[in-house]
Amino acid sequence: MNYVNKGRLAHDQVSELTTNRLSVYLRCLNQVIDGAGVTTVSSQLLADQFGLNAAQIRKDLAYFGEFGVRGVGYYVKDLRGNLRQILGLDRHLRVAIMGAGNLGLALADYPGFRQEGFEIGGLFDVANEKIGQESRGGVLTYDVKELKRLARRERFDIAMIAVPASRAQPVVDLVVSVGIKAILNFSPGVLKVPNNVKLKGVDLTVSLESLSFFLAQDNAGG
Amino acid sequence: MNYVNKGRLAHDQVSELTTNRLSVYLRCLNQVIDGAGVTTVSSQLLADQFGLNAAQIRKDLAYFGEFGVRGVGYYVKDLRGNLRQILGLDRHLRVAIMGAGNLGLALADYPGFRQEGFEIGGLFDVANEKIGQESRGGVLTYDVKELKRLARRERFDIAMIAVPASRAQPVVDLVVSVGIKAILNFSPGVLKVPNNVKLKGVDLTVSLESLSFFLAQDNAGG
Repeated sequence: MNYVNKGRLAHDQVSELTTNRLSVYLRCLNQVIDGAGVTTVSSQLLADQFGLNAAQIRKDLAYFGEFGVRGVGYYVKDLRGNLRQILGLDRHLRVAIMGAGNLGLALADYPGFRQEGFEIGGLFDVANEKIGQESRGGVLTYDVKELKRLARRERFDIAMIAVPASRAQPVVDLVVSVGIKAILNFSPGVLKVPNNVKLKGVDLTVSLESLSFFLAQDNAGG
Repeated sequence: MNYVNKGRLAHDQVSELTTNRLSVYLRCLNQVIDGAGVTTVSSQLLADQFGLNAAQIRKDLAYFGEFGVRGVGYYVKDLRGNLRQILGLDRHLRVAIMGAGNLGLALADYPGFRQEGFEIGGLFDVANEKIGQESRGGVLTYDVKELKRLARRERFDIAMIAVPASRAQPVVDLVVSVGIKAILNFSPGVLKVPNNVKLKGVDLTVSLESLSFFLAQDNAGG
């Protein structure tokens, strides 16, 4: 079965929420595999163990043509391989990180990225004292002036933006100009990209505020 | 109008997706206010400027008793004040960050947190060479053994977990033991907390994988 083609047809219909859930399932399967020598898993077991919804799991997987076997569940390794293919993780995507401050360095060494096959190809910064330094995990910081040359040689697929908000737009413009088509932005604020570039923002304040909301309810109630 | 009480009644019905959207609206209003001397804003303008859904905005705000004025829209400052109250941000929540590595230091100085009134009360680590050091923004790192004493004095509301995955569960247990009721976890993997503690995970790999999915579709299509 060719999941990439199936995925392509469904491109516009597959919401980001669905791909986010597929990512979560993949993370759960990794944990299941890391544990005992489990070969099959049911949607119910995944749901119970990781606090998910069993019916939603079955629906999401069925959408991509992945059907469990009655009384057996899913074959763990096959399911993981298929999820990786659907998510495009079988291609070893290469990532450039713009900004070698604490956030950039933390992202460079974030263990989850490597585990799923993302390769962090380099950090880029303007500060002379950072250029030529390595993160603890061994990722080198380059002069941002080298981005164009290295983007060609290293074939970066994705750029992460970890520069101060005031410098984010020019850095994004630079990234777009060297042909990178997918951007993950950690700076607060709204950035502009051309239509053929996918920009995704990670706003850490949103997560914190959902905890704040919880505490406000809890206080009012208790 | 007392939004906290209204929120309390609705506690179980207000999904995390809704609170996430309210956070996004608040972020947008901040940008509107930072700009020109705008006093009113329509849902349509917010939608156009920030790529949101105008009907969804009206629905979300109406749920909390916030109605726009026909032909005028919403009064920006009032709306912002009400959103802050709904999200519990009028209380100046205090945050402890567990782990003073690159990620902890990046979180300590993340500008968005302070902007919304979160106060980062301290970093906590086990490494002697980190204890007593300050982040660039001036947040001090304490010995983790001091958490209990400081949690009482500083009244921490929220803990962020920025330690390696292998150490996350004991650190969470410690945080729970000193009475902190809300936890934001940046470590990969599943953690256990008692029922009366709210744990929210930020999995950075999920965001990266949604870009990977986009690139896979794009490649198959192009």
